[in-house]
Amino acid sequence: MTEFSAKYDPGVEVKGDEVLCLHRNENLFVGPEWTVDTAQRLVAQAAVSSYPDATSRPLREALAEHFGVQPENVFVGNGSDEVLADLLALLRHFFDVAHTPDVCFQVYPMLLERLAYAHEILPGNTFETGRIDPTGFRGLALVDSPNGITGRGLDAAELMRLADHEKSFLIWDNAYGEYAGDAAPPLRANVAFVRSFSKFFALAGLRVGYCIADESIVTELLARKDAFNVGGFAQVMALEALRRVDEFAALRDKLVENRKLLTAGLEGLGFRVLPSDFVAVLASHPEHDAERLRAELLARKIAVRHFTLPQVASFIRVTVAPEPQIERLLQALGEIVRG
Amino acid sequence: MTEFSAKYDPGVEVKGDEVLCLHRNENLFVGPEWTVDTAQRLVAQAAVSSYPDATSRPLREALAEHFGVQPENVFVGNGSDEVLADLLALLRHFFDVAHTPDVCFQVYPMLLERLAYAHEILPGNTFETGRIDPTGFRGLALVDSPNGITGRGLDAAELMRLADHEKSFLIWDNAYGEYAGDAAPPLRANVAFVRSFSKFFALAGLRVGYCIADESIVTELLARKDAFNVGGFAQVMALEALRRVDEFAALRDKLVENRKLLTAGLEGLGFRVLPSDFVAVLASHPEHDAERLRAELLARKIAVRHFTLPQVASFIRVTVAPEPQIERLLQALGEIVRG
Repeated sequence: MTEFSAKYDPGVEVKGDEVLCLHRNENLFVGPEWTVDTAQRLVAQAAVSSYPDATSRPLREALAEHFGVQPENVFVGNGSDEVLADLLALLRHFFDVAHTPDVCFQVYPMLLERLAYAHEILPGNTFETGRIDPTGFRGLALVDSPNGITGRGLDAAELMRLADHEKSFLIWDNAYGEYAGDAAPPLRANVAFVRSFSKFFALAGLRVGYCIADESIVTELLARKDAFNVGGFAQVMALEALRRVDEFAALRDKLVENRKLLTAGLEGLGFRVLPSDFVAVLASHPEHDAERLRAELLARKIAVRHFTLPQVASFIRVTVAPEPQIERLLQALGEIVRG
Repeated sequence: MTEFSAKYDPGVEVKGDEVLCLHRNENLFVGPEWTVDTAQRLVAQAAVSSYPDATSRPLREALAEHFGVQPENVFVGNGSDEVLADLLALLRHFFDVAHTPDVCFQVYPMLLERLAYAHEILPGNTFETGRIDPTGFRGLALVDSPNGITGRGLDAAELMRLADHEKSFLIWDNAYGEYAGDAAPPLRANVAFVRSFSKFFALAGLRVGYCIADESIVTELLARKDAFNVGGFAQVMALEALRRVDEFAALRDKLVENRKLLTAGLEGLGFRVLPSDFVAVLASHPEHDAERLRAELLARKIAVRHFTLPQVASFIRVTVAPEPQIERLLQALGEIVRG
């Protein structure tokens, strides 16, 4: 058999209740009163033994209302993982090359390899500028904005220019969009706007992602998806989350506030912290190797993430948490960097 | 865009509490003490907000122990839908043609079209014989045994002969295997044995399927799957179901007993009932059109399934249910066929 080596590493799974987990892109501000109490209440209604609604129709209707589009403009998948994979599989009939930022969600290279796309970097893009140059672009662009590793967002108008040419196609992966205040762009035949219930709505364990796109695209995605691609319990929980969107917005505001606290604390210890529009920050210390910092924190039962990707190899990534956990992290980091 | 017309119809979704639903291949013998009570108890442990175990490792370990293989021989997917799609996508590199029974699970033609396979019928197979002739077969075979429409199973030894040639590959879709007493075949490099938690374990709404196969196949499937393909709650519930396999076996025995009752009742009304190894039976009446029977039953708030597929167009399919529901169905059918 051919070798397929690409494999996504979601960040090591850390066992043990005492470990402070700040190494995954998860929403740490949603407590068990949502995840457990609501689930217990709704699981009866979810009909675990019956096949789920095959096209997630009630959820698509609710999302359509939320975004001011039609249900025919909404596709729901088994996490945005599946939505992205299905979009890229569909677009493979029209494109041989896919363009991404040079530092991007690490699932992209894997997906592109799996579908035998050539992978190129977007014109004008580097990790340092964090910008792109959409002028005259023609092709398929797959862009995570806010960025899945750095958390930085691109200017929406600039991003949309990647779809200026009618033969271009833009997949805007906006998994963290609720943290950046992003709005869904107006419907266009050559743009798919991808979101997830995993981050803002903290339902990562249930696998619900979706895209807003032209009806022709959604029709194709529905016709080609697996017969039952989204679980019934997942659909019911996502619907309930959407109904209670205001509560999640308040938790998001709290997270953004704590991101400032975390950033200030890290800067106080001599770290350079990159601007972030999402659930974590990248931080680099002029005198301390990032991989060593990660290991020393783990020895103190605090998990943060380190990427071997060259552009970000000097950074650790720390997920924003409630105050007590930020305190614990800063205390430990203080001991490490001060020696 | 190209047209992709194939689309699976899982059977109309019937609303209203009073409708007796006997039209879907679901296990009607598992009550809310399992689906709801267990779910409520386990949802806390499922960590709905966290990403699930990416390769479903604990579940693969439990399945490996159950089947006497290694975890490296087990792949878990988002329902057997995804397992089949992933297997067929992988095997597409080696085969241009896929062979199935002439009457088979209606997702197969859709999957084969999606992956641009030519679709041929297995040598020697017809609906009437329900047999195949494996002698000298060379190619890719995708076989639902027990059959997804008729419920009839093939002889396992005969089925396995489809993998006699080392360049052949057999996907044995054994979604209903627990009803037929089927055992997983010995591991072979060119056989994948596919099962599901949807039927016997009544977790259709949570989407968990798996296959037992050679490690080389599982390695490829893992490398090419979506990053998080199976929900965390689904994994926890499937693990619990497997732990309690004996309870489900008792419910299966009850279902098999009621299948005899249902069959006898239908025969008493003049129906021809095909032998079935699964959760439903196909029944045809010499004097009554099947589509009209379906419509008349639905007018009496009883849903059964009718397929337009020519070979089975003269049959209705009735899902086996507890006694009171069988009584209600037979009473209504009696009124209809006796005029």
